[in-house]
Amino acid sequence: MTSPGNTWRGFEFRQGDVIGMYKVKKISIDAGEHTVILSEKDAKDLGVRSLDRVRVFTKERTVTAIVETSKEMIVEGEAGLLCATYDAVCPNGEKEVDILPAERPESVDIIKKKLEGSILTPGEIRTLVKDMVNHNLSDIELTAYVVANQVKPMNLDEITELTKAMVETGDTIEFDKRPLFDFHSIGGAPGNKITMLVVPIVAAAGLYIPKTCSRAISSAGGTADIFEVLCNVNQPKEKIKSITETVGGVIVWGGSVNMAPADDIIIRVEYPLSIDPYSQVIASVMAKKKAVGADYFLLDIPTGPNTKVPDMKLARSYAHDFIEVGRRLGMKVEAAITYGGQPIGRYIGPAAEAKEALMVLEGKGDRSTSVLEKATAMAGLILEMGGVAHGNGKQMARDSVSSGKALGKLREIIAAQGGNPDVKSEDVPMGHLKMDIVSQTDGYVTAINNKYIVKIVRAAGAPKDKGAGMVLEKKRGHKVEKGEVLFSVFSDNQRKLDMAKVVARRFDPMTVEGIVLEHIPGNSRGVEIINVEYQQD
Amino acid sequence: MTSPGNTWRGFEFRQGDVIGMYKVKKISIDAGEHTVILSEKDAKDLGVRSLDRVRVFTKERTVTAIVETSKEMIVEGEAGLLCATYDAVCPNGEKEVDILPAERPESVDIIKKKLEGSILTPGEIRTLVKDMVNHNLSDIELTAYVVANQVKPMNLDEITELTKAMVETGDTIEFDKRPLFDFHSIGGAPGNKITMLVVPIVAAAGLYIPKTCSRAISSAGGTADIFEVLCNVNQPKEKIKSITETVGGVIVWGGSVNMAPADDIIIRVEYPLSIDPYSQVIASVMAKKKAVGADYFLLDIPTGPNTKVPDMKLARSYAHDFIEVGRRLGMKVEAAITYGGQPIGRYIGPAAEAKEALMVLEGKGDRSTSVLEKATAMAGLILEMGGVAHGNGKQMARDSVSSGKALGKLREIIAAQGGNPDVKSEDVPMGHLKMDIVSQTDGYVTAINNKYIVKIVRAAGAPKDKGAGMVLEKKRGHKVEKGEVLFSVFSDNQRKLDMAKVVARRFDPMTVEGIVLEHIPGNSRGVEIINVEYQQD
Repeated sequence: MTSPGNTWRGFEFRQGDVIGMYKVKKISIDAGEHTVILSEKDAKDLGVRSLDRVRVFTKERTVTAIVETSKEMIVEGEAGLLCATYDAVCPNGEKEVDILPAERPESVDIIKKKLEGSILTPGEIRTLVKDMVNHNLSDIELTAYVVANQVKPMNLDEITELTKAMVETGDTIEFDKRPLFDFHSIGGAPGNKITMLVVPIVAAAGLYIPKTCSRAISSAGGTADIFEVLCNVNQPKEKIKSITETVGGVIVWGGSVNMAPADDIIIRVEYPLSIDPYSQVIASVMAKKKAVGADYFLLDIPTGPNTKVPDMKLARSYAHDFIEVGRRLGMKVEAAITYGGQPIGRYIGPAAEAKEALMVLEGKGDRSTSVLEKATAMAGLILEMGGVAHGNGKQMARDSVSSGKALGKLREIIAAQGGNPDVKSEDVPMGHLKMDIVSQTDGYVTAINNKYIVKIVRAAGAPKDKGAGMVLEKKRGHKVEKGEVLFSVFSDNQRKLDMAKVVARRFDPMTVEGIVLEHIPGNSRGVEIINVEYQQD
Repeated sequence: MTSPGNTWRGFEFRQGDVIGMYKVKKISIDAGEHTVILSEKDAKDLGVRSLDRVRVFTKERTVTAIVETSKEMIVEGEAGLLCATYDAVCPNGEKEVDILPAERPESVDIIKKKLEGSILTPGEIRTLVKDMVNHNLSDIELTAYVVANQVKPMNLDEITELTKAMVETGDTIEFDKRPLFDFHSIGGAPGNKITMLVVPIVAAAGLYIPKTCSRAISSAGGTADIFEVLCNVNQPKEKIKSITETVGGVIVWGGSVNMAPADDIIIRVEYPLSIDPYSQVIASVMAKKKAVGADYFLLDIPTGPNTKVPDMKLARSYAHDFIEVGRRLGMKVEAAITYGGQPIGRYIGPAAEAKEALMVLEGKGDRSTSVLEKATAMAGLILEMGGVAHGNGKQMARDSVSSGKALGKLREIIAAQGGNPDVKSEDVPMGHLKMDIVSQTDGYVTAINNKYIVKIVRAAGAPKDKGAGMVLEKKRGHKVEKGEVLFSVFSDNQRKLDMAKVVARRFDPMTVEGIVLEHIPGNSRGVEIINVEYQQD
């Protein structure tokens, strides 16, 4: 049993209260929170135990850190400082620090308040986000926050304040040209390379679209991983601004600038639990859009089995709440609920997706109609929002692709980001080893499991190995004969390809059924599709 | 954003799938969960990131561990194993291990199920507790469990299964003599040294009471810390059994035997958040009682402001649910709701409480009537449960004290546990430095804040420094004149005494009010008291 309260809570030690000096030992481990390792004896003498807080300080600097204890590595009189803590306290290689018990940050009480179901005040939300960004919260406390947000979701007032606080605690980019457009897909649908089409179509129409995107966490490849196959996605703030203002668009990795850094800190604990609290999804996405100063923002919500948004009820709720939070932040948001129950297009994996995006822009996308359909639908909506299209946005977007304007603009962006502007889809190499998976039976493809597809592509080496990927030969509703290839897996590493094979055998991603009990062609697969006229490849 | 699912989830690697061998580097840090530190490059090559799971194995052994990454301390090809992980994988000093990505334990899904409000099955609860005890859950996952239990409390079926699982995953003691009696106080009331009276009174009446107790986590002293002043509270299972069966009772530290070890693992994450989920409190206490095989168990529920149980509604709910879980486990449980809104007796701190307990047993407790009243009321209830008293339990307990029988039995216990049986209350030394806190005004003591009392005594050095403590000269309802001593603080260390002074100044623990607006003498302080006729000291 624990008793409530921390002995030292609320008791401010003064810097002058020096109990003893500790020799600094740098411990090269990366941890989420500031951490100091003490010998068991020193910890006892300080009256602290594992996971208590102490202030670690020199004359110039002070940091609040979590205590861990060690029996051997750290001897009496030593303070083991983990990387980030060392850098924060001893930037000039200071050799000694002092340590005193410290109180828990106020944020712990704020998190407990949320757990009890209370509405947090704007001030409390700011305190919480500041403590996150300053690495003042332990994994345990961050987990309690994430779980609280999951079981007692924030209301729209709180989400709005959370978004603002996440923006304020990070970098922002100030553009001279306006208005700015932005686009984001909620994750979950593999092969969703459409950003590589949406951005050039929008920019080619004379609008500004500074698109920051993410790397894969548990997908087969984020847009940043994909576009990196063609050019440098790590661009500093100044380049993001200058390229956007001259070329019209960029596609860069958001991590190269420090926008809404609280998101990464929260993701660290969300990831192991695979939880993604509703209110946090909205705040994290909106904070990144607000940090670049987007005036208009289109949100794509892929919906369907094995995506992040399994049903229309949740999709509509997201759409509504994103739009409302946008309104409160002075941002015009529109949302498109799209079908995400199977991969978009046929190519999955970093190089594979870059290749397919180029193919479609080059007019070679006969077997990738869903990519063209989705990308032009999305881009069309942005063109309407920007007032350059009036009811004919999608057609305008299609024209941009068929005329080669979009491809030309993408090449300008590639050039501006240090890539080869003359790159062609056939130049993009996929893994040189290939494995075909063939059907064991005649029938129809009745289901494709997104998560299993991702498992296989990751086993083949994605997203780290750019060439690791998959090409689907069949998609939902297609007729298959026994012995026909269902999909091929590519890799540069025989061992990884073998692993992908084991995974594919265990997690069969494609269901082929001899008798199709209910086959409804087109897009009516039990999930309503809004705004997007969707066709099968 | 995270996507759901772990790439490797559900994919079983075979032991033969050797990717590469890693040189073992032992890292002497104690962490709650099995942990391996890898170089960033090796982690990437394995396709794992910080907080993912891997299997670390030799030919003989395998352990699932959490990954952390290091830039410098660990080089490519090295595996940094934290203490417990090293001991588990390399007990014979093995120099090399192999590492493969591993799936998350099933418990993560079980915890998420609980978070969604589902009722867990007995099998799920067993899996969960086993994973805890085997150090298979990270702090993040354990926190999610604790928070889930806090916001979606387990029902009585689940609590019963949790209790059983906690018992089964630890040691138990089999006694030859029966029936066995046990006693426990829910924490929160400082100065609650009554176990030192209850156990000898019960044992002196011919009943068996093998009392395992805890050390302070955030209190000024647990019963183990207190009794340790007089003898050795670390006793192996065999001694607990033999002393109980010959002398009638023991008072030992529960941590010296491995009973219900899941409790310590859960406490690790409860402590930093100061949360104590209702259902976990019941399971943790009941598991420790079941592990010693108690047939009859009396629970003391101190209730009042600044205790763990602030109101009667919660106290009654605890009483009811403890009794019901006991019934399902075949244990006869009774509960006493007692007033805990101010300290029990006048002495607080390890040596101070041992001293006061002896004083009362020696008949020198004129100023410690609440200790005698509470202890004899509790012991009397146990005597009734045991059938040796029939409506006169409390009087029988009083007689045991006044006749010296209880003191004689305590001395037998002290002797059996290796202490000096001739010890007298005046022999127990408190800190040689003393500080008196005097009243600044005339009036009545209208409130004593338990938490502030504990803060001061801990600042003075308790529970580590046995002599650190406090003696209350005034308690609630007492008349005070300006300049009179309210309480004294003892310590062996001037600096710590100075600290206690700073804390006492900041967190004034005693409210003296000139005009008593409502003064109800005796025990009717807005909190109903059941079973205990309670008198002020």
